Amino acid sequence: MSEVRRDIITDTWVIIDTENDTIPDMPMEEIAQKVDCPLCEGQENRTPNEIYAVRTGSAPNTPGWKVRVVPNIKPILKVEGELKKYGVGVYDMVSGVGANEVIIESPQHIRHFFELPEEQIELVFDTYRSRIEDLHCDKRLRYVLIFKNHGRLAGASTIDHPHSDLIALPATPSRVKQKLNGAREYYGYKERCLFCDIIQQEIEMADRLIIQSQHFVVLSPFASRFPFELLILPKRHAFTYKMILKEEIKDLAALSKKILRLMYDTLGEHPYNLFLNDSPNLLPQSNYWDTIKEDYHWHIEVTPRIYRSTGFEIGTDFHINRFSPERAASALRKNL
Amino acid sequence: MSEVRRDIITDTWVIIDTENDTIPDMPMEEIAQKVDCPLCEGQENRTPNEIYAVRTGSAPNTPGWKVRVVPNIKPILKVEGELKKYGVGVYDMVSGVGANEVIIESPQHIRHFFELPEEQIELVFDTYRSRIEDLHCDKRLRYVLIFKNHGRLAGASTIDHPHSDLIALPATPSRVKQKLNGAREYYGYKERCLFCDIIQQEIEMADRLIIQSQHFVVLSPFASRFPFELLILPKRHAFTYKMILKEEIKDLAALSKKILRLMYDTLGEHPYNLFLNDSPNLLPQSNYWDTIKEDYHWHIEVTPRIYRSTGFEIGTDFHINRFSPERAASALRKNL
Repeated sequence: MSEVRRDIITDTWVIIDTENDTIPDMPMEEIAQKVDCPLCEGQENRTPNEIYAVRTGSAPNTPGWKVRVVPNIKPILKVEGELKKYGVGVYDMVSGVGANEVIIESPQHIRHFFELPEEQIELVFDTYRSRIEDLHCDKRLRYVLIFKNHGRLAGASTIDHPHSDLIALPATPSRVKQKLNGAREYYGYKERCLFCDIIQQEIEMADRLIIQSQHFVVLSPFASRFPFELLILPKRHAFTYKMILKEEIKDLAALSKKILRLMYDTLGEHPYNLFLNDSPNLLPQSNYWDTIKEDYHWHIEVTPRIYRSTGFEIGTDFHINRFSPERAASALRKNL
Repeated sequence: MSEVRRDIITDTWVIIDTENDTIPDMPMEEIAQKVDCPLCEGQENRTPNEIYAVRTGSAPNTPGWKVRVVPNIKPILKVEGELKKYGVGVYDMVSGVGANEVIIESPQHIRHFFELPEEQIELVFDTYRSRIEDLHCDKRLRYVLIFKNHGRLAGASTIDHPHSDLIALPATPSRVKQKLNGAREYYGYKERCLFCDIIQQEIEMADRLIIQSQHFVVLSPFASRFPFELLILPKRHAFTYKMILKEEIKDLAALSKKILRLMYDTLGEHPYNLFLNDSPNLLPQSNYWDTIKEDYHWHIEVTPRIYRSTGFEIGTDFHINRFSPERAASALRKNL
């Protein structure tokens, strides 16, 4: 049997197969060989000049760094140039102004994010905060997305040096708008944050809860689009990642290492994406300006790519998930 | 350089790389061997009983058919049962009522839809019409999507006998709602059908136009999400596929055969999805009831899956397309 579940945050629907108890087959994944990696320490002259780095004393673009941020060598958007809006008959477009950066998460070439030491992951999460703060000063940019592509089937390039990608956009993406609208609508009705209510309910119900730490909860979302999808929510209400505290970063680093290791132990080598869902870079004239501080709540999503989307998903934005979030949470808890 | 283009139909955005002139690398695709296919003529006892068939005289579930429609052997939704709505704390769900059918497009086991004779493709398109008409009588069903998955990387199963999939849903999908809203908003402002205006403009501008027949145009959409995406639009305004005329089906069959062959000649063996974007099954109390006849316009989309979506697409519903629709249309026209 199956259930058709509504994602209350985005107002989209997912068909969940509640009977199947077999973890879907992993797709075959080619693991790249380490060949002449331009992101390793000592290869700084092979990337564009760094925008940001965590260093102790060494000169920019030389060895001696812990985290390094550089422009993407083939950027899809560029910071230079005026943001112009055009019409092409009935159509609209804007010039390709934005930012496309690579956050190099380690001087060493390792394969898995969870293999990094906790202190190193803390530096990465602090770099996220710092880059968002900096890019939000540019009022042409409406949204900053930081994400990870792990594995070719999750869209990763052939370089498997640990890194995140950052794209800053001149328009707010529709999935973000769906979330902002869902959160605002709920707040308008209940006068409570939707995400705070989800945290409370999931801790009480416990069947989709995987783990909680002092400052975060990790759960399988009720309307998971993908098998083994994860949602990481900060317990303290905060509408933007820029408000994250030092002790929360420390906690998030330890928790992320643990949960990504747990996913690997449960699913084996598998492709996945991870992304930080932050608030947009709002102007005071935005529709969302007045209420976002109360109604929005930043979060992280992890989406294993062990299912190949079909014409159904591409045509409808409905998803089919053949392994229920309750079973996924249970399988993960067993390996804790 | 790149342009950020708005899809006026769905109000979503696509970043188009307008400089790159290299057709993206095709992903490696495993071609299934024909092994013991349950959809071939003579194997009727290996599928559930047929719902519909084009036959001349022979008994149901025996050989002697041209097109055959059967329930999916592992249906994700089932027609039986009452449509019940539940709440689970803050969440909403409905029971998994719907339909999940397989439209077997040929008694013979061939690989490509375009290899079928035109008369056979006509029967397939007429079967689409017939199944939608029948399923719309069931007022629990809100939307019928008919789609094709060609190739494993487009989500096809291991059975590569030519077939389409049909899923009828108890809720209208969000991508369909986006389109209905886009079309209605445009109509409210201009008092003209958005799709009719797109047809006129694309014929005039010609740079994204690939081919037109007596009753249809084929074009590369201005805000194509994927390289070599196609949009097939009927010239005659009609809000639902159920209104298609016999002569239009004949024309569409010849055109589809030609255009899918053209894609194969240009891209080689490649995974793709094709889907029919029809109107929802509206009740008189629906928001869309009053205006849909004037403002909506059925169409077919073809989306080659030669790009693997990353965390960026999954997190934002923004897309990056590294091969512009103008270049794609030009490359296709050269092979006409």
